[in-house]
This record gives sequence, structure tokens and C-alpha cells, in this order.
Amino acid sequence: MVNLTMLTDFYQLTMMNGYLKSDKKDEIMIFDMFYRKNPNDGGYTIVCGINEVIDYIENLKFEEEDIQYLKSLNTFDEEFLKYLRDFKFDGEIYAVEEGTIMFPNEPIIRVKAKAMQAQLVETTILCIINFQTLIATKASRICYSAMGDSVMEFGLRRAQAPDAGLYGAKAAVIGGCIGTSNVLAGQKFDIPVLGTHAHSWIQSFDTELDAFRAYAKAYPTKTVLLLDTYDTLNSGIRNAITVFNELREQGYEPLGVRIDSGDLEFLSKEIRKILDSAGFENVKITASNDLDENTITSLKNQGAQIDIWGVGTKMITSFDWAALGGVYKLCAVVRDGKMIPKIKISEDPNKINNPGYKNIYRIYDKNDNKAKADLIVLDEEVINENEPLTIFDPIHTWKKMTFENFYVKKLLSPLFIDGKCVREKRDIKDIKRYTDEEKESFWIQYRRNKNPQIYKVDLSKKLWNMKNDLLENRNIL
Amino acid sequence: MVNLTMLTDFYQLTMMNGYLKSDKKDEIMIFDMFYRKNPNDGGYTIVCGINEVIDYIENLKFEEEDIQYLKSLNTFDEEFLKYLRDFKFDGEIYAVEEGTIMFPNEPIIRVKAKAMQAQLVETTILCIINFQTLIATKASRICYSAMGDSVMEFGLRRAQAPDAGLYGAKAAVIGGCIGTSNVLAGQKFDIPVLGTHAHSWIQSFDTELDAFRAYAKAYPTKTVLLLDTYDTLNSGIRNAITVFNELREQGYEPLGVRIDSGDLEFLSKEIRKILDSAGFENVKITASNDLDENTITSLKNQGAQIDIWGVGTKMITSFDWAALGGVYKLCAVVRDGKMIPKIKISEDPNKINNPGYKNIYRIYDKNDNKAKADLIVLDEEVINENEPLTIFDPIHTWKKMTFENFYVKKLLSPLFIDGKCVREKRDIKDIKRYTDEEKESFWIQYRRNKNPQIYKVDLSKKLWNMKNDLLENRNIL
Repeated sequence: MVNLTMLTDFYQLTMMNGYLKSDKKDEIMIFDMFYRKNPNDGGYTIVCGINEVIDYIENLKFEEEDIQYLKSLNTFDEEFLKYLRDFKFDGEIYAVEEGTIMFPNEPIIRVKAKAMQAQLVETTILCIINFQTLIATKASRICYSAMGDSVMEFGLRRAQAPDAGLYGAKAAVIGGCIGTSNVLAGQKFDIPVLGTHAHSWIQSFDTELDAFRAYAKAYPTKTVLLLDTYDTLNSGIRNAITVFNELREQGYEPLGVRIDSGDLEFLSKEIRKILDSAGFENVKITASNDLDENTITSLKNQGAQIDIWGVGTKMITSFDWAALGGVYKLCAVVRDGKMIPKIKISEDPNKINNPGYKNIYRIYDKNDNKAKADLIVLDEEVINENEPLTIFDPIHTWKKMTFENFYVKKLLSPLFIDGKCVREKRDIKDIKRYTDEEKESFWIQYRRNKNPQIYKVDLSKKLWNMKNDLLENRNIL
Repeated sequence: MVNLTMLTDFYQLTMMNGYLKSDKKDEIMIFDMFYRKNPNDGGYTIVCGINEVIDYIENLKFEEEDIQYLKSLNTFDEEFLKYLRDFKFDGEIYAVEEGTIMFPNEPIIRVKAKAMQAQLVETTILCIINFQTLIATKASRICYSAMGDSVMEFGLRRAQAPDAGLYGAKAAVIGGCIGTSNVLAGQKFDIPVLGTHAHSWIQSFDTELDAFRAYAKAYPTKTVLLLDTYDTLNSGIRNAITVFNELREQGYEPLGVRIDSGDLEFLSKEIRKILDSAGFENVKITASNDLDENTITSLKNQGAQIDIWGVGTKMITSFDWAALGGVYKLCAVVRDGKMIPKIKISEDPNKINNPGYKNIYRIYDKNDNKAKADLIVLDEEVINENEPLTIFDPIHTWKKMTFENFYVKKLLSPLFIDGKCVREKRDIKDIKRYTDEEKESFWIQYRRNKNPQIYKVDLSKKLWNMKNDLLENRNIL
């Protein structure tokens, strides 16, 4: 990834300069990155983008041309420009593993650094994590609806600019897709690339049959034919059968057909019948055309005979929920070695952040290795797995739950210490495998697309007390 | 822009190889890029991204590492890999001017090149134009709703990956915004960057008043204070007035306040009253918080006292219409010097493309210089401005319209000829000015957000005949 240092909001720079002028240069700030609402009213998200956060932080540097540009804005003095020239991130970042299943209000990334450093990185961290997490989650929903069928990512042409196509393809594969049409994503992330031909291929020949024959000749072992350029049932599938028979005479077995328009339920069933009666039971039917988890679920319910789903626009843009509203909130400052928890107050209780320097324990049942609940704690808190653990709902505090025979996993672990990256970037295939395990560790009730059960995310007693003290005794106004 | 050659769909490569193997290497293909539906059921789009298409085409080149990657896929032979190694775009591209107002089914970009070249560039051209056009159009809608108030683009943190933030900011400014929070976009496109401070600034001080004072001290001539960190009316505006009075005593005039949550209608009116009665009639109120054209229209209707609108997520992602469905369709091939028009047939008449090598005339009334209708024609057709011009609806052919006292403008003009770029990239400020003129050239009936009048886009008699001949006499199946 290139140097994205200047990819930030201008107010980060005006605040940084303000911190410098207010003698807050060496004050330590702690920020949490989290989100408040699962996309599509789903039950969870799959965190994605940690690799790119590593790249971003490692490449942080203001180049001389950046300094000159900032100087030209007539807002900053030489003291600040000199600071930027020497800028180096030497703080601490904790993050969950890429591919982890997460829930609202849980810190995904925790930054502890000097005020100016911690402030600068807000925008790009959000930009990276918000988008990739959104798409990994959308892909997971779409794959869930496909009930084990293969789903392919096809959305590059509708992606919101090149990066979205590239990182969206990565996220889609982590979320569950078998591959992408995006060649650059295949190259960069070592993920499968897929594709055959478009309507233009068919049109460029004098007849559809000529086009099919030419494709089968070029790819005799990988023949998949697109049926809907002119007339799917009266022409497309008939010509395909002709060419499939010719292939078979030459000793090759055709792989599939694809339909990209029309009534996919009806067409897929008719095509299946025609293929089967012509002796091509193994030929797979791929369908595409503005699919998402809702249309796939509907087609599945109708018994559509579709084996492979090509999903484009609706996945790569998360069309019906086009942003994860991830935020980056100050939760503490360290002044003269003392940690001072910070809170942002709001009329809306859901918008009040959790103060303090925190971590998250995920509590697993020893019997089935399924996650039971998450507990947000102050970082120093330790859970003794050999004693019963009682947690309580932070709003309805009488709602309690006690665990015995459990074990815990701490979710935030070091990414950068003293500005040095301490975690290796992981292969996309490894992340994908990890994500599959993550899904396995949650009962389906939390993962279903519609009306999922709300997974329990509670606060430790210490954290709950800290938060309530801040809310009750605010002398900050 | 970097080399985006590999940012393409895999099927472009399999088709290219297929063309090579089918002796179609030197066949010329003509493709139109167009879209079928205006976003948000609006009346138009503002085309954006032409500068980046220039960059893309000029940087087309397969690097040796790309070739090695493609080789590793075990799909392509040495003949094809050699072709890619030597790949050079030497075709022709026509395009509208960036910032032009366009309508469904009108060619925005027309590519005429050897089959393999014309095919390769489909995906990236679509990716670039679809997104930037979407955002320029969304920004235009949002600015329309603000009725002349300033609108600022603030969406980077929610943009769909870094490129979307960067090019989205550019498109938003072309669409009508006064500036962006995105520093990189400011640097790269020479557009105004804007911003002051976040809640974290306020929280990082012991009290809100300390935070306001520190900001005013750092930026005495540019003081804008964020009011809603703790309690907008009981604390934020009171502390702001204190600091504004202190500023004034020092001889400075404060610029503004910002609110980012709560009931913007009620709060803005209360704040206006308090500011005015404290003698700060010139202090502007900026509001943000998940705004789009619908919420802004609603706030305007309620008389909200908001002077400047900060718009983030909903604009940078075009949240409620997250993709422009632009397509790239084969409309002709040239074989042995003969132009053969091509058509894609569909059950849905709206999905049948216009065949042939085309251009578009925009017809203006000489009296008021307003655009009256567009006429899609075969490229060789010339309109005589001194004779009456009659056009007809392509579906309801009895609906006719005759123009006298008109002049025409041809919308597609050369971008690349024989692979050479023949049009200079334009400054964003120039494009923005041109876009403003474009808007002026259309009556408001076509530009309003809700239920716009449908602007007339007809086909010339010659084109209409060609299309109907192809539909009636298809021997392509």
C-alpha cells in the first residue's frame, strides 16, 4: 500500500496543531475504534482490514511535498510543520485478529499514543476497517443465504472506485466467497480468480452457436457457456447442448452454463431439466443478476436449480447498507503518568462510549467450545477460569448470568508496541480459515440473517462503576 | 494514478485469449458505456471520472510480474502471454466532457479498438465512471436541497476504502460542494480543505471551557466551536459565548459553531437566538449528523437556522443508492472494413442496447440557451441548424416534436485517437465551473430531486431503423 499519511481529515491537523500549542504534545491519549450497529440489522460483523492498518501505520510519513502543500494553506506555522516533518508513530496499537466476529460497542482497535499521533490516524483506520468489515459481513450474509453453495464475487465494475474493488474482493473472500473476478485482487491476495465470457463475446460472432463453439475450442476443459444473450430457452441452452455434445465426442466434459437475466427460478429449473435429459447431469448452473442475500434466500425457497451464485453490485457496495458507522472515540488520557478516563455524553444513551483502557474477554463453554458472551473489562482485569463468573446486563442490571466450566480468550492483542509492528500480516487464506472457525464458534442463532438473537456483551463491574461515576459526577461542563 | 492494468475482470482475459485463438485479434469492436437508470429516481447524472480514465488508459501496461502471475494460473499459453507483454492501447475513445449532465441510455464513453483492447478496458472504465458519476450526482442533489447554502464533504472515514474517499471528494466538489475534509483530495485536486476540531478535542481538556479557550487561542481568526460534546444548550453554547466574548475583547470575531447530534431543527433555532441576543449575529451555524438531501429538505422546510451543512456518510457512499449501474455494451464490429451493428436482446425492452457507431446531439433553444432534448444519432449524421428538426419518441413514435431557431452541440468528442490522448486533463475548478453552467442550461423541472420531468432522449430515424431491422430480422441465434 502506498503512503496514506495525507489521507486524513483536515481537522486532525488543526487539532494536532492545537495540541502542540496547548502543551499537550506529550500527553498520551487512548482511543477505541468500535461501531454501534450491525449492518442490515444482522447479529455480528466480521472484522477485516487489520493487514492494511499495519501497512498504513508502517508507511506513515509526511513527505516534503506534503509539508509544502500544508504550508500553502496559511493555517500552520513553522513549529508545526517541523513537527510534521519529523513525525513518527511510536505509540501502541492493540487490535483483534483479522476475521474475528465482533459485536456493537466492542473495541476492535485500541490506540494509545501521544495526542497528536493518536489523533492523526483516526480517519484512515476508520476508512479501512469500516469498509472491509462491512463487505466481509455482507459476504458472510450472502454465503449464509446460499446454504453451502459456492458464491463468487463479481462486483469490480460497480465498486466504489478501484480500492473498493480490490479490498472488497479480499473482504468478500474472507467473508465466505470462493473467489473473485478481480484479477488484481487475485494477484495481490493470492485468492482464486474466476470468469469465462460476457455477452459481448457472444455478440461478436455471427451466431451464438459460432460463439459457443469458439469458446469451447479455446477452453475445452473449462467450458462454461453464457445462455442469455438472445433467448435463453429457445436459443441459448439449445446451442449449448449442441456444443456440449460436440465436446463430449472429442473426449471433454463441459463444466457449466450461466444465466445473467430473466426469471432465475423458472429458467434454472427448465435448464436443469434440459441438461439432465441430454445427459449433462454434472453441468453446473451459475446465476447472476443483482443478487443479494434476500433474492438468494427467495430463490432457494422456490427450489431454483442454481449451483453457483455470482454476486456483484449488491455485495461489493453492500448496496442496502452502504456504510458501517465505525467511530473512534477518546476513552482516556494519561497525564503525568495518571490514567484519566474520558466519556462523551449524549442524549441518546446508546451513543455514550465506554471509558477507560479496556480489553474484551470472550467466554466459551468448555463442553461445546461455543462462545457464550463477551465481557468488556479494564485492561488490568484478570478472569480466573477456575471460579464461577457472574456477569450482568449494563442497563437491566438485575439480569445476571453465571458461568462455570468455561474458558476465556482475550480479544485485543498487540499490533504495534512503541511504534514497531509486533504482529505478522496474515495470508488471506489463513484469515479465511480463521473466520470459518469463528463462525463455527457461534451458535446459528447469532448468525442467522433475519432476527438474530442478540449476543450478550456486558461490562465488568469495575468498568460499569467507572462509567456510572463519570456520568453521575461530571464536572467537565 | 498507478498502473491499473490488472484491475480487470478475469473474463476479460479469457475472452481476449479466446479472440486471439479465434482469429479476431485485429477485428475492431465498438463499445458504448452508458447507464439505464438515474440514481435516486432523479432526472439526470453529472458525469465524472474522465480525467482518471485518461490516466488509466495512458498507464496501461502489463508488467513482467503480472505476466508471471497470469502464467501461474495455468490458463494461458505463451502466445497470449507474449501478446500481453507487448500490449499497447492504440484505439480510439470518445467521451463527453467531465461534468456534463447526462441521461439514461446515452453513450458517455465510446471505445473503438481492436477486440482484445476494447474488451480489456471495460471493467476499469466502468469502475471509475460509475462511482464518480454517482457521487457527483448525489452531491448535486444534496446541494440542491440546501438551496444555496454551503455544503461541505466530510465522509472520508465512511468512504468505501481510500480511493472512494479521494475520488468521492473530487466528485462531491464537482457536484456542488464548497470543499472537503479530505486533506489528500485537497492536495491532489487543489480543492478547499475544511475542518476545525472533534469531540475528542473537547474531551481531552479538563473542561469544555478550557477546550474552547485553547482552540480560540490557537485559531483566533478562525474560531469555530463544536457545541455538543456534553450538553449543547446547557453547556456548549454558554461556554462558546463566554469564549466568543473573550475573543472579541481581544479584537477577533468568531466565525461559527457546529452541532453534530440531537434535534438539529430545535437546537439550531435556540442557538441562533442565543447567538443573536449575545451580539453574534454573524456567527454561522454548521450542522452535521447523517444528513442527506431528504433530511436537509426537511430541516429547511422547518426553518432550521443552519447556514452550512456538513455531509458525510450519506454522500460519500450515496448511501440510499450505492451504485450507478453503468454498463459497457458491444454496439458494432468492423470486419474487413465493414461496420456491422450489434445488439443484445432481452425480454425487457429497456435492456436492449442501441446498435451502431453513435454520437449525441444536444438541442438548445436559441432564445434562452436551454437544452430542449437530446438526439442519439449515427456518428456520420449531421444536423442542419437552419432547417426545422423533427424528432420522435422511440417507443410511442407518434409523439413528435419539431424545433426551429435552435442550435446543437455534439456531446461525444475525441479523448484518444490511435492510442494518443488528444484532450488535456482539466482542473477540478474548471470542471466545477462547467458543471455549474451545465446545470444552468437545464430548466429546474429536469433537475429537481423529487419527480423530475423526464428529459427527452430520442433516436434519429436512421438509428431507429437500424435498431428495428436488427430486432425484426435476427439471424443471430
